[in-house]
Amino acid sequence: MTHRASVISSNRLEAFSDGVFAIIITIMVLGIHPPTGHNFADLTPLRPVFLSYLLSFIYLIIYWNNHHHLLKTVDLLNGWTMWANSHLLFWLSLIPFSTSWLGSSGGAKAPAALYGFSLLMPAVAYALLQFAIIKSHGKDSTLKKALGRDVKGKLSPLLYATAIGLAFFVPLISYIIYIAVALMWIVPDRRIADELNADHLKMSAN
Amino acid sequence: MTHRASVISSNRLEAFSDGVFAIIITIMVLGIHPPTGHNFADLTPLRPVFLSYLLSFIYLIIYWNNHHHLLKTVDLLNGWTMWANSHLLFWLSLIPFSTSWLGSSGGAKAPAALYGFSLLMPAVAYALLQFAIIKSHGKDSTLKKALGRDVKGKLSPLLYATAIGLAFFVPLISYIIYIAVALMWIVPDRRIADELNADHLKMSAN
Amino acid sequence: MTHRASVISSNRLEAFSDGVFAIIITIMVLGIHPPTGHNFADLTPLRPVFLSYLLSFIYLIIYWNNHHHLLKTVDLLNGWTMWANSHLLFWLSLIPFSTSWLGSSGGAKAPAALYGFSLLMPAVAYALLQFAIIKSHGKDSTLKKALGRDVKGKLSPLLYATAIGLAFFVPLISYIIYIAVALMWIVPDRRIADELNADHLKMSAN
Amino acid sequence: MTHRASVISSNRLEAFSDGVFAIIITIMVLGIHPPTGHNFADLTPLRPVFLSYLLSFIYLIIYWNNHHHLLKTVDLLNGWTMWANSHLLFWLSLIPFSTSWLGSSGGAKAPAALYGFSLLMPAVAYALLQFAIIKSHGKDSTLKKALGRDVKGKLSPLLYATAIGLAFFVPLISYIIYIAVALMWIVPDRRIADELNADHLKMSAN
Repeated sequence: MTHRASVISSNRLEAFSDGVFAIIITIMVLGIHPPTGHNFADLTPLRPVFLSYLLSFIYLIIYWNNHHHLLKTVDLLNGWTMWANSHLLFWLSLIPFSTSWLGSSGGAKAPAALYGFSLLMPAVAYALLQFAIIKSHGKDSTLKKALGRDVKGKLSPLLYATAIGLAFFVPLISYIIYIAVALMWIVPDRRIADELNADHLKMSAN
Repeated sequence: MTHRASVISSNRLEAFSDGVFAIIITIMVLGIHPPTGHNFADLTPLRPVFLSYLLSFIYLIIYWNNHHHLLKTVDLLNGWTMWANSHLLFWLSLIPFSTSWLGSSGGAKAPAALYGFSLLMPAVAYALLQFAIIKSHGKDSTLKKALGRDVKGKLSPLLYATAIGLAFFVPLISYIIYIAVALMWIVPDRRIADELNADHLKMSAN
Repeated sequence: MTHRASVISSNRLEAFSDGVFAIIITIMVLGIHPPTGHNFADLTPLRPVFLSYLLSFIYLIIYWNNHHHLLKTVDLLNGWTMWANSHLLFWLSLIPFSTSWLGSSGGAKAPAALYGFSLLMPAVAYALLQFAIIKSHGKDSTLKKALGRDVKGKLSPLLYATAIGLAFFVPLISYIIYIAVALMWIVPDRRIADELNADHLKMSAN
Repeated sequence: MTHRASVISSNRLEAFSDGVFAIIITIMVLGIHPPTGHNFADLTPLRPVFLSYLLSFIYLIIYWNNHHHLLKTVDLLNGWTMWANSHLLFWLSLIPFSTSWLGSSGGAKAPAALYGFSLLMPAVAYALLQFAIIKSHGKDSTLKKALGRDVKGKLSPLLYATAIGLAFFVPLISYIIYIAVALMWIVPDRRIADELNADHLKMSAN
């Protein structure tokens, strides 16, 4: 086995990505400013801000979790994979911005559409990262077998795109779609885990 | 021994959680803005801000420390545990907000109650995380044996709830309760450490 | 082989640097404030802000990636190397400032020049770090063999300096140079990877 | 050898501390706001802000570096050590605040004194951490032998205290003392490294 293409250690990419994930999640809170008044009524206008924060928090945990499963399948890390991963982190890093704009939007159309865009682009970037990993491992990659038809991965971008379109008419439906896709993903991706276990059993059997 | 349910490595969850803990603790400082004046008198209004920061800093260290002991008992990490852990991090991430509001409140009732709420929810989330870990390990889990009656874990939410209620009448008593619970926890949780040592001794004896 | 000069573990320096990289990249986003209006037109003035963020994001990933390759070649870490590394992190930590000023500059000369300066100084610091590592390893260091003539490393500072000079006349050309240098570096540094593989093969052959 | 008192893994404490160090260093940059004007002249008022940032950056790297050497000597980590470490991190976390106030102070007395206080307290906390580690290891601890008379460690608090006192008369002398102490520490602490090497040689000899 040659390590020729493996120019970056998978561990360090994972640690770096974890750091970025942790910081993105946590700095979103900096977008929630304590009110100047000191009654419970002063918290009321912050309700949509909190709800957008909660939704984006869940999305980022989903990405962190799936990213963790994804990198588990990686033996070789070449330059393309490194850039595909950075590309994903770039789009994820913009989620605090779109979240903050959504939270203060009062149901306006543009922030509802932009939020969908800020979810669509990481989904595209994640698909490119999967593609880069599969390509660097050849046809028999653990990931490829694990993905199978990858229904959720293909459905999500379509749903985001639909929600972006609908945001120009009824933002409320877009919100519901964003929440529904998050719920769809909350179940962790058993496919890869199962495939890894299958590999593990085979290896134990040898 | 099967690793079927173990879809996330305990190390990465710990590293990710550590990152979030470190960031939550440190960004709280961003809520303390240097005064525009440059005399010692200009620092006086910041006293309650510093005291709230100190209290929340201590609470977050307590959570970090107990969380560390808790994850030490984990062999298997399934999806439920991952989400229970994320749920805990979510509530902890709101502590900078409630701390900042408390610091600027001048003894008002709502911020004193909200601060208690922002302590109560992580306590509930921590209990759920313990429950998820015990459930995934079965009856003989190290954690279950270690917890025993878990007096502190059961007492804290009751004290927070009491403090929230009292905040509507005498916020000062609530403050005292928050400080008292922190002092109660500062002693690290020897129960789990002792149980791990007991296990360790048994293993050495075999 | 003596470890006398090796007073810092390479792993911890790498982990600490990774943390700083991850935070620098992510806090740049805090410089992008959501507009107060809620129409797409309100995003238009943010276009240069986003473009500067994208460019700096790419530069920081390039530095992170090259830094990773660089530290891979290190066996010994003495005080000079530690300070050379900190010196690099210091200049990188100022990139969010120069990026933010550039983004809001509307094509002004001073921010275009300062941005070049904020790229030039890390390039100088990186060269010093390479020098410190080579010096601590002696003539036969893996890094020295890998660097060879190091065309990109020598060309970049010259290009930054040119761009800084031109910024006082035509900032647009400076922007183009900054983008061109980034593109030149996006290809990861195969030299070190190749040299490490060569070493690896030699070791396997023995 | 019993691990009874070792309830926290040294690695995780180090990783957590590293995270806090990295974040404290980097968020200090958030205190430097880009000027609204876009000429070089608009940067002039930021000069003291940059200088304070540079000084605090150096101090935090010194602490990070010494902290790294310190934890290298630790085999056992008990609750006292964990709290002594947290106590150190607490005071370090206030450095961005005092740095920011100093940077905007225009040579005023109170910020010069407070900055000294924000250096004095981590120095005291560091001494307590050393004490906690030595106490948990007994008389023959590597650290105790390494520290010897610990001239720098004893001199620094005295110099900070002097600088605090002088700040009420001539802040300029305080600044000079802060810079001088930093220069004194920039040389990494060879004592511990030497002692570890001595231990290492002894172990190799056996």
